[in-house]
Amino acid sequence: MRTQVVIIGGGPSGLLLGQLLHTQGIDAVVLERKTRDYVLSRIRAGILETGTISLMHQAGVGARLEAEGFVHDGTIISYGDEEFTINFKEHTDTSVVVYGQTEVTRDLYDAREAAGLRTLFNVEQVEIHGADTDKAYVTYNVCGETHRIDCDFIAGCDGFHGVSRQTIPLSVRREYEKVYPFGWLGILSETPPVNDELIYAASERGFALCSMRNAKLSRYYIQCSLSDKPEDWTDEAFWQELKRRIPAQHAEKLVTGPSIEKSIAPLRSFVTEPMRWGRLFLCGDAAHIVPPTGAKGLNTAASDIHYLFEGLKQHYLENNSAGLETYSEKALARVWKAERFSWWMTNLLHRFPDQTEFDLKMQKADIDFLRSNKSAQSVMAQNYIGLPY
Amino acid sequence: MRTQVVIIGGGPSGLLLGQLLHTQGIDAVVLERKTRDYVLSRIRAGILETGTISLMHQAGVGARLEAEGFVHDGTIISYGDEEFTINFKEHTDTSVVVYGQTEVTRDLYDAREAAGLRTLFNVEQVEIHGADTDKAYVTYNVCGETHRIDCDFIAGCDGFHGVSRQTIPLSVRREYEKVYPFGWLGILSETPPVNDELIYAASERGFALCSMRNAKLSRYYIQCSLSDKPEDWTDEAFWQELKRRIPAQHAEKLVTGPSIEKSIAPLRSFVTEPMRWGRLFLCGDAAHIVPPTGAKGLNTAASDIHYLFEGLKQHYLENNSAGLETYSEKALARVWKAERFSWWMTNLLHRFPDQTEFDLKMQKADIDFLRSNKSAQSVMAQNYIGLPY
Repeated sequence: MRTQVVIIGGGPSGLLLGQLLHTQGIDAVVLERKTRDYVLSRIRAGILETGTISLMHQAGVGARLEAEGFVHDGTIISYGDEEFTINFKEHTDTSVVVYGQTEVTRDLYDAREAAGLRTLFNVEQVEIHGADTDKAYVTYNVCGETHRIDCDFIAGCDGFHGVSRQTIPLSVRREYEKVYPFGWLGILSETPPVNDELIYAASERGFALCSMRNAKLSRYYIQCSLSDKPEDWTDEAFWQELKRRIPAQHAEKLVTGPSIEKSIAPLRSFVTEPMRWGRLFLCGDAAHIVPPTGAKGLNTAASDIHYLFEGLKQHYLENNSAGLETYSEKALARVWKAERFSWWMTNLLHRFPDQTEFDLKMQKADIDFLRSNKSAQSVMAQNYIGLPY
Repeated sequence: MRTQVVIIGGGPSGLLLGQLLHTQGIDAVVLERKTRDYVLSRIRAGILETGTISLMHQAGVGARLEAEGFVHDGTIISYGDEEFTINFKEHTDTSVVVYGQTEVTRDLYDAREAAGLRTLFNVEQVEIHGADTDKAYVTYNVCGETHRIDCDFIAGCDGFHGVSRQTIPLSVRREYEKVYPFGWLGILSETPPVNDELIYAASERGFALCSMRNAKLSRYYIQCSLSDKPEDWTDEAFWQELKRRIPAQHAEKLVTGPSIEKSIAPLRSFVTEPMRWGRLFLCGDAAHIVPPTGAKGLNTAASDIHYLFEGLKQHYLENNSAGLETYSEKALARVWKAERFSWWMTNLLHRFPDQTEFDLKMQKADIDFLRSNKSAQSVMAQNYIGLPY
């Protein structure tokens, strides 16, 4: 088999790239290790930056997002019972849209199928060959049989544990990592969200986040110990702890109910450099991870896809490789900004086990400054709605 | 002896308070442990915020500052050979003034003497009595003889090692501290400053600062190890190291010469709460220390003096104690903001021994963001010229 671009990974990054390439008549094959249903069962955040939304429209999959997404003009930050709003609209004249990652992925799969584009599921033992030569190809197994696809380029959209990053030799690869000393215990419940906008809550007992999928489906998180297990937390214990961490005026109104999903996610910052090795281009989680504070994961993957798509378009339509040559540099410049913001927001709102009394005062002073200073609020709003590509 | 206000400490804070009180006919005695010449021999930074300058004018000592101070509309931040300017004027419509702390102190002593106000030098064994009662008084020794001054209030302007803070019982006192794992090696040299504006230089070899007293007197600093001694550093070694840390375009122009002063200062953040105990009010270094990055030490002392002066004026002229009652709260609110800024700027620009590769990337991303984002520059400018009282 032969194609122009092999996309390894059928998550939102790979699928978005596939649809964008399709709009330009560039041929691509998507290889996915699992099934479509498995991919769609992964629950992830769903706050979309303006740039991500534009890409969805550009890819021809913006209609449902437009109809069903919830526009958020701001977000609440709280400390104990005190709260204030960061008004995105006021500072940036734009907003974010709440639309679950699962919905993004579903729309992309639907479009891919409607267009009759090639996606291979249950693909095992993917290997990338000759990425640093003019004869690149990918081999993989399906049902025990080995196949080969020859290609011009490979987009590594296969996540943190995927084969793409590992293919880049250690001699040219440099990795940067921070593992945070806590996790997020999250639940999904069929209850109305406690508030129209998200509440990022700092408190003496640790961080909490009130988020939502839609008017009847809420997503809540509390900072927890890395040694905790989801089964250690009854629903009742979760709700009690959440109420202690959010302002009383919200805790009083919180509608609780049985959790329909409960899990713990560790928090990590990670970046690999470079993001390109010959004909292989890393995108999204394959190259970088952010802690979920600030919802930059999917959005940063989307910005990678933007740069790679523009580079591939330039290559195929204008016979100009400049965009591909500078992909790593451009993508990384924006990645580090998103890493900075996610790290800053994580530091701002969480309790750390080694914080001194002075550190706690600085954290509180940071929140107070943000509350009182319009320019600081503008900085946060600009980062939250997404820095320009 | 009796007075309305005993001011312990004849540094700039105590003297400024003395002159301000004098303008309102409020009687005060200043007690100083050393001599006037000793106080004037202490070399300190001299970047004055707008509010500090206003207080100097209010105290009737603004004339020489107005004539001889250097107005700075901005400051340079560099990283390696890259540099950018934070334009104070553009973001805040105001500036800072470079005028050595020694000059401030000299002007205040001259005014104090011209007005014939009481200052006692070489005062030993100062003790504060009955600060929490209606009969407050201070005892001290001069030439082996014990004296007593009865008073309404005591202003503790006697610095970090003074008696004032120690007088507040530990049961009501809470202290917050961070000691940074490096110092500043500073030299004074009779050479023209390398640049009109200050250069705050981050580099792979550590921080450096190019500052000045006037057109012929330069003040330079380099971050050094806490185990270093000034005598470990020849002038030649200092200049070599400084040149490595500032952008090449400045290093080339740097005029070097023999140092006329060379010393190492440790960096510390420190705050004590509360800043008032009965009739005792702590001001300046007696209550808080900032690292020198950002030049907030003298300016934060001045803001304390502003709040205390307003409180005393209200008490004596309007028979209203509200300002004195809320002194600690108001002063601390602004102190914590200055602590936050000094801590942020110290973290932004110094190398820390325990920094990981990821931490270094975040530090660089912080500097890059500051370089590229107008709102972030505005935040820095507002803090540097001084937040409103």
